[in-house]
Amino acid sequence: MNEFAAIQHFFTRSSHPLRSDVKLGIGDDAALLQPPPGQLLAMTTDTLVSGRHFPEQTCAADIAHKALAVNLSDLAAMGATPAWILLALTLPELSDIWLDGFTKSFFQLMDRFACQLVGGDLTQGPLSITIQAIGFVSPQNVLRRQGAQPGDLIYVTGHLGDAGLALACLEKPHLFSLTSGQQQTLLQRLNRPEPRVASGLALSGLASSAIDISDGLAADLTHLLQASQVGAIIQTAQLPLSPILKTFPAASAWSWALSAGDDYELCFTVPREKQSFLAEALKDSGCSYHLIGEITQGDTLQVLTPEKNSFSFPSRGFEHFKKK
Amino acid sequence: MNEFAAIQHFFTRSSHPLRSDVKLGIGDDAALLQPPPGQLLAMTTDTLVSGRHFPEQTCAADIAHKALAVNLSDLAAMGATPAWILLALTLPELSDIWLDGFTKSFFQLMDRFACQLVGGDLTQGPLSITIQAIGFVSPQNVLRRQGAQPGDLIYVTGHLGDAGLALACLEKPHLFSLTSGQQQTLLQRLNRPEPRVASGLALSGLASSAIDISDGLAADLTHLLQASQVGAIIQTAQLPLSPILKTFPAASAWSWALSAGDDYELCFTVPREKQSFLAEALKDSGCSYHLIGEITQGDTLQVLTPEKNSFSFPSRGFEHFKKK
Repeated sequence: MNEFAAIQHFFTRSSHPLRSDVKLGIGDDAALLQPPPGQLLAMTTDTLVSGRHFPEQTCAADIAHKALAVNLSDLAAMGATPAWILLALTLPELSDIWLDGFTKSFFQLMDRFACQLVGGDLTQGPLSITIQAIGFVSPQNVLRRQGAQPGDLIYVTGHLGDAGLALACLEKPHLFSLTSGQQQTLLQRLNRPEPRVASGLALSGLASSAIDISDGLAADLTHLLQASQVGAIIQTAQLPLSPILKTFPAASAWSWALSAGDDYELCFTVPREKQSFLAEALKDSGCSYHLIGEITQGDTLQVLTPEKNSFSFPSRGFEHFKKK
Repeated sequence: MNEFAAIQHFFTRSSHPLRSDVKLGIGDDAALLQPPPGQLLAMTTDTLVSGRHFPEQTCAADIAHKALAVNLSDLAAMGATPAWILLALTLPELSDIWLDGFTKSFFQLMDRFACQLVGGDLTQGPLSITIQAIGFVSPQNVLRRQGAQPGDLIYVTGHLGDAGLALACLEKPHLFSLTSGQQQTLLQRLNRPEPRVASGLALSGLASSAIDISDGLAADLTHLLQASQVGAIIQTAQLPLSPILKTFPAASAWSWALSAGDDYELCFTVPREKQSFLAEALKDSGCSYHLIGEITQGDTLQVLTPEKNSFSFPSRGFEHFKKK
């Protein structure tokens, strides 16, 4: 099977209900798309490189899910509704089994968000996946990293640290004593992040700022603080930990929650006067949310233990370029 | 310099005049873009992998030009005006010298087409470049692969075969006796393809179909014929050859023009009754154009020599996946 046959067989879904705003999909030099009037387009792209953003032994279905989810997560953090996807897939060789696993998982996640694959490129080379995701957002509903004000409350969705812990367990299993059931739970969190699209949409008009957590809470919250030109205090006791992380010593669990990457939860700020609307807005979003701290004046991120001491933890999130 | 500092230093151009339709550029979870009313968006993505789509010794400036040009070429083939660019760049390491060469060349080509870089991703891994290009086109001005009718005339822009010849000279220099000046001319054609955006725009309302030639004329014309459900006759004597290819034996030169990839010229069809408007429409497009044949009924591509014999040539264009 050559490239064109593979695209036809695995990526073209003529029988599938198509979005009416896709005027021309896969098969020409470019896709032709009709943007909705009055909306802004939110566009993002993220690359996953084998051995760098996922372990080399990760199965095709998990890779597909993660590659798409991390892009949808970026749209969620803008308060946008996902719509169109482009996929640039670089593979060492055309394997039917691999492509079958990849595309089934890819389309499964795409269908959940009513997205359509409108274009892409299939090339030979070291395994990597670059996705471009395009969504719609009304100008008044945009969530941005800037906008947080001193006094705003800081929240995160879901739990933190599990994905990073999963990666550490894969790399250094001798350091952890986890049951195989716990390992599977953690791996699911690493390989199958859930993009918080519904939460992002529900936060429009409530959140003063938002970011998705890809590099670790501390690293990404710092990006938000810099964009908003504010500081923050985080209470370690309020960090949402999974049942597995709760079995760890507190300081260790907090470090995972603060520094580990790959969570793909949302971190967002809410003005105090809007706090009471949050429960109603997020009740159908499909995930929990937790108050973890407060925006302050200044430009520092303070992390406080229950004893009001400053908590020290590995300062770097995911290092994008490894030092030699 | 880490990823964030590199993005800030090399990819952020705050002093540069920005497009008014870019409401939010680099620096948040996604870009926010305002599409023009009444226009369709043309979206394409192409990946270039080191050692596969360009020789490993290619300099950063040439890589940047080519990666962007091949995407702009796809928009040109749709009759679209380029607007927004996203860049997913995977590098083995963050090299200031490499990034400086890459970004200067990248922005130089982007400025020529009044495009803006609105987002991207910088990751560590084997060198590859994935670009997404988004342009605008009125529904009535769209060029597609389908639409060619029997009797339509077939044209190509510029000259064919030089880029493929350049690659062959790099790989097997002992097979060719070219001056260093000729080699430089060929390399320029391989490394610095010129996207035929002005030609694509000028062909709106005249061309019945169009495609850009990335895999070789015969391969890409075949895509056009399949989409249009027609056949074609090409006259080898009418294939536009560069001065260098004209010094080759005719059969050899024709084979390069028909089979070599990386030309990034446009191949398009024009109904006979519109032929007389072509010269005026294309006079300011900055490149030549040449009549090479005619659309026929049926589904075969015939290539005829001046003696009206069928001309045999290597049938495959660029092979996207090498056989083991």
